[in-house]
Amino acid sequence: MSKELAALLMERGIYLHEIAQIVYDLQIGFVPDLTLEYCVEVLTGVLEKREVQFAVLTGVALDKLAEAGLLTSPLQEIIQNDHPLYGIDEVLGLGIANIYGTIGTTSFGYLDKEKVGVIGRLNCNKVNKVNTFMDDLVAGIAAAAAAKIAHASISHIGSNLNSKTVPKS
Amino acid sequence: MSKELAALLMERGIYLHEIAQIVYDLQIGFVPDLTLEYCVEVLTGVLEKREVQFAVLTGVALDKLAEAGLLTSPLQEIIQNDHPLYGIDEVLGLGIANIYGTIGTTSFGYLDKEKVGVIGRLNCNKVNKVNTFMDDLVAGIAAAAAAKIAHASISHIGSNLNSKTVPKS
Amino acid sequence: MSKELAALLMERGIYLHEIAQIVYDLQIGFVPDLTLEYCVEVLTGVLEKREVQFAVLTGVALDKLAEAGLLTSPLQEIIQNDHPLYGIDEVLGLGIANIYGTIGTTSFGYLDKEKVGVIGRLNCNKVNKVNTFMDDLVAGIAAAAAAKIAHASISHIGSNLNSKTVPKS
Amino acid sequence: MSKELAALLMERGIYLHEIAQIVYDLQIGFVPDLTLEYCVEVLTGVLEKREVQFAVLTGVALDKLAEAGLLTSPLQEIIQNDHPLYGIDEVLGLGIANIYGTIGTTSFGYLDKEKVGVIGRLNCNKVNKVNTFMDDLVAGIAAAAAAKIAHASISHIGSNLNSKTVPKS
Repeated sequence: MSKELAALLMERGIYLHEIAQIVYDLQIGFVPDLTLEYCVEVLTGVLEKREVQFAVLTGVALDKLAEAGLLTSPLQEIIQNDHPLYGIDEVLGLGIANIYGTIGTTSFGYLDKEKVGVIGRLNCNKVNKVNTFMDDLVAGIAAAAAAKIAHASISHIGSNLNSKTVPKS
Repeated sequence: MSKELAALLMERGIYLHEIAQIVYDLQIGFVPDLTLEYCVEVLTGVLEKREVQFAVLTGVALDKLAEAGLLTSPLQEIIQNDHPLYGIDEVLGLGIANIYGTIGTTSFGYLDKEKVGVIGRLNCNKVNKVNTFMDDLVAGIAAAAAAKIAHASISHIGSNLNSKTVPKS
Repeated sequence: MSKELAALLMERGIYLHEIAQIVYDLQIGFVPDLTLEYCVEVLTGVLEKREVQFAVLTGVALDKLAEAGLLTSPLQEIIQNDHPLYGIDEVLGLGIANIYGTIGTTSFGYLDKEKVGVIGRLNCNKVNKVNTFMDDLVAGIAAAAAAKIAHASISHIGSNLNSKTVPKS
Repeated sequence: MSKELAALLMERGIYLHEIAQIVYDLQIGFVPDLTLEYCVEVLTGVLEKREVQFAVLTGVALDKLAEAGLLTSPLQEIIQNDHPLYGIDEVLGLGIANIYGTIGTTSFGYLDKEKVGVIGRLNCNKVNKVNTFMDDLVAGIAAAAAAKIAHASISHIGSNLNSKTVPKS
């Protein structure tokens, strides 16, 4: 299923290595020995999560239906024009971002505001395509992967909660 | 109660006009006629919300208890040192950020990552004071106010959901 | 828009007074002078919220598309058969339930599990219709209205947070 | 850490087998071959999650501080009397309930409303002890364990998302 999901993303113009680059940029400041290969590996794990698959399938379906003009008014116009208060796209993205805990929310909010990398490209490309959900889905996937890397890199601290030597963040 | 809450924030070194500046900077790009005075007014409304008051009272209490060394181990060390995976501070901040809908989550995530203005100052000042909760509470308050301003400024669009003239974001 | 939303619900076989009955049953134990009329009034207010409208429009669209067999596989089968782990329906319902704070989550969880009143009827009626989203949307709307009534009935306590006479719950 | 957490719960009068009974009752209707032993095993896994540990440590600390009268007014009265709109206890409980996805929210809402088993006992016992957080923490732990069991029992369906034979729920 993870492969089929990657294929679905590719069909919508998103390549895994582009998302990996976002994850890398988010975490390299905290995890100096991070590699792009490891980011791809973590992303593949994120795409294997059923909740992620359900959110992506739903969001992409709505983008494609709006693209084909198959939704009824007013939802057709709302999604087609990425209505600034719609929010359901963000809710699906956040649902993905949070699969490894609320730590993913921060990165999601940052990516959603800064429109980093492929996310910015998606958000601008509104001539031929509807990407109302896609940019939030990608931000959610990248944020979840960043959260997983953060958890893994800090886990040696967590195993030691009872000691008085927990380092400052 | 809003006044008492502002006093509690002041006791912890936070002035309303500093939070207003963050709100202003977040929204001036979208709302060109925004003023600092209006940001203060909206912030006052946020501080009147009971959910916000409960979150602030709880977070500040934990910061002060940790500062006084009155918590038991390991919670004392976790909060005193702002353990990077702790997350309860972020959960309280997010609860505030979302009182006007998920639109506040984005700004919260951005502020939490970028440590803008007074939030950055709080996050660094760890010599004499514990501000583990305070920076997330302030980010939540600023994000909620920004969300309220965004809602108000776009509401003329929303009143017209059935028309086909919803503008692009 | 609130009227158009009520019409959309009616088209899907849901009458406002049925939702009002659920709200009444949830709150009558706490608010002895509650009336069905007041529940309808509060529900009308809930349906006027833009976030609620967006969630209902999206969920109903997906139910109708699945009913018409217009989604692509595997999303078509997932929504048509109300896949037990799908969860996006619940996420939209929760988004509605929480518009007046997390207090709505409890009622949503209860209604979602107990399938009270019209929600139960929706959940069973799977011969001709797809109601994968509708039962969660109705549970969310009822839970939000119940939360609003709860807030209003307890607000005289809240105005007095500084006194030491806050009554036991 | 899981053992220390179980000890902390025991100190507050909660035994793992009591929580296991709640989990068992929630899931036996869906998983006919479920055993109490398996519920204990899943619960132990839940207690090993760092997010759960942080939430429990924080909530129990606040309960104990309120019990000892060590919080300042008005937070002391709010937590001591379990103010019906406080909500931070519920937020921590929900954070635990959702560690395996939103599916835990439903059970949490149900347990929070019905006050099943040990949760009801906690909620009533307000003579000597403050259990404002504890009942929500226990409901969250039970709901998370129930969600994990639900996921495991349905996973053979999920592995087959592309087939058209997904059974009805």
